[in-house]
Amino acid sequence: MSVTVGIDLGATKTAIGLVDSAGHVVQVERILTHADQGYEQSLERIAEVIASFPKSYQSIGLGIAGQIDPQSGILLFGPNLRWRNVPIQSFFEKKFSLPVHIMQDVRAAALAEWKYGAGKGCENFVCLFIGTGIGGGVVAEGKLLDGSSHTAGELGHMIIEREGPPCTCGSRGCLEALASGWAIAKQAEPEVLSAKEIAEAARKGDAKAKKIIENATQAIVTACISITNIFNPERIIIGGGVPPGLPDLLPRIREGIRHSALPAAQKKLQVLPALLGAEANLIGAAFGNLNEPQE
Amino acid sequence: MSVTVGIDLGATKTAIGLVDSAGHVVQVERILTHADQGYEQSLERIAEVIASFPKSYQSIGLGIAGQIDPQSGILLFGPNLRWRNVPIQSFFEKKFSLPVHIMQDVRAAALAEWKYGAGKGCENFVCLFIGTGIGGGVVAEGKLLDGSSHTAGELGHMIIEREGPPCTCGSRGCLEALASGWAIAKQAEPEVLSAKEIAEAARKGDAKAKKIIENATQAIVTACISITNIFNPERIIIGGGVPPGLPDLLPRIREGIRHSALPAAQKKLQVLPALLGAEANLIGAAFGNLNEPQE
Repeated sequence: MSVTVGIDLGATKTAIGLVDSAGHVVQVERILTHADQGYEQSLERIAEVIASFPKSYQSIGLGIAGQIDPQSGILLFGPNLRWRNVPIQSFFEKKFSLPVHIMQDVRAAALAEWKYGAGKGCENFVCLFIGTGIGGGVVAEGKLLDGSSHTAGELGHMIIEREGPPCTCGSRGCLEALASGWAIAKQAEPEVLSAKEIAEAARKGDAKAKKIIENATQAIVTACISITNIFNPERIIIGGGVPPGLPDLLPRIREGIRHSALPAAQKKLQVLPALLGAEANLIGAAFGNLNEPQE
Repeated sequence: MSVTVGIDLGATKTAIGLVDSAGHVVQVERILTHADQGYEQSLERIAEVIASFPKSYQSIGLGIAGQIDPQSGILLFGPNLRWRNVPIQSFFEKKFSLPVHIMQDVRAAALAEWKYGAGKGCENFVCLFIGTGIGGGVVAEGKLLDGSSHTAGELGHMIIEREGPPCTCGSRGCLEALASGWAIAKQAEPEVLSAKEIAEAARKGDAKAKKIIENATQAIVTACISITNIFNPERIIIGGGVPPGLPDLLPRIREGIRHSALPAAQKKLQVLPALLGAEANLIGAAFGNLNEPQE
């Protein structure tokens, strides 16, 4: 069975793995990215890990949070990495003399769910990944949407409350400003480090925390009603680290859609949890050159 | 030059035309739909008009406001026509022994803009038609989005104000509930029949009318920021009867996007007026079987 190198290059940590053609991660190593030391050092460390793997792989795929130019294989801008114009693809091509492709990490995760996860066999679905930030991946008419400058699917920056709280993007009332990990943590007084703490406090009955969690849940439900009306998907797939802290999120989304989305738009809709968890980025990156539905 | 019959079947009026392969309407007749008299009579009257045309056409295309099953050619439900399960395609096929196809009217208009209008040559664009209601058509990665049950592109039912005014769809705060013709007319006191009256009053300096128009304008700007982030289109094309009553709508949209959409998502974006006006439905319906970009 052929294997591919998949890399999930994150602002803090990077996972480097070997993924087989059935989508299984057969080997994985995690390192700190140390983005602040400059991209050359980070990429060198990743290359060392790849070089330590058995030489069974024939290509390398990398998923990364940021704006990508897939044609040139350049990371134009990685806001959290604080890297600009990094020729990632050519770096690894020169090192390994193998085909290399790079893609935006959330799109990689959507691709993995399409090929091996909750989107399998489906031509119209939307992935919504709710973590520290909120990202999306849209497969419509059998294509992973890319957009005119490779940024399609930024569902975290749908505005659902015109006069809502400010978002990191400079706008107001984005889904991300209401329901992301950072937005949940920010609403606590005093502000806490992670949404998990709020979720835990809500579980223990803290009234303020419950209100924050309820507000985030409602925002996600609202966004999913819009997603249903906009895309008429067959599936909405919910992933990321925040949903486990929101009690009954999926039933709430289903109920909200049943109640408020256009009846014709929800005829075939299922709301499902993402299946691949945190490894989706790595798996999708490994197979990112296959923008096709898989059986 | 070959010609096709295009039909724009509306709740009140129906336009029946001959469209040539350059997208020109070479002949058109308008009749009242009289939907309340039952579909058989309406379709018979349309058939009479077609029969009166020179016998140069080789196919018939019909655009209609409602839920369509394009495979069977049945109108499942036309809310404003109050028709259900009407076998429109087979009706005209039997009458004329020619290929017949039907499609949702807004999608037909988007197709027309793609083939002959403001979307020409473009693989990623969004049409937003703002009339009595608000509809959309999305072309992404070179495909007109259809969705899992043929309702993709209901951009009027994006929620942009969670606790906003009720919409006819049963939800709240939809774009349509804030900026459509009916929503604008409804905000007047006493309520007026058309958004045009409000636009006219605003032009004459009426403070209340100006506020209503400003509110609708802001809602459209907000929706266009979301559309930019969601689809990363190359063009946003604005059509319909309401925009002429909203002063500086396009510059306002451009300014709002420049200020508040993700910088990477607006890199290649142009905001343009629709070019084909009210005839877009008819032209698109005539060519609705060609779901392909045209040069």
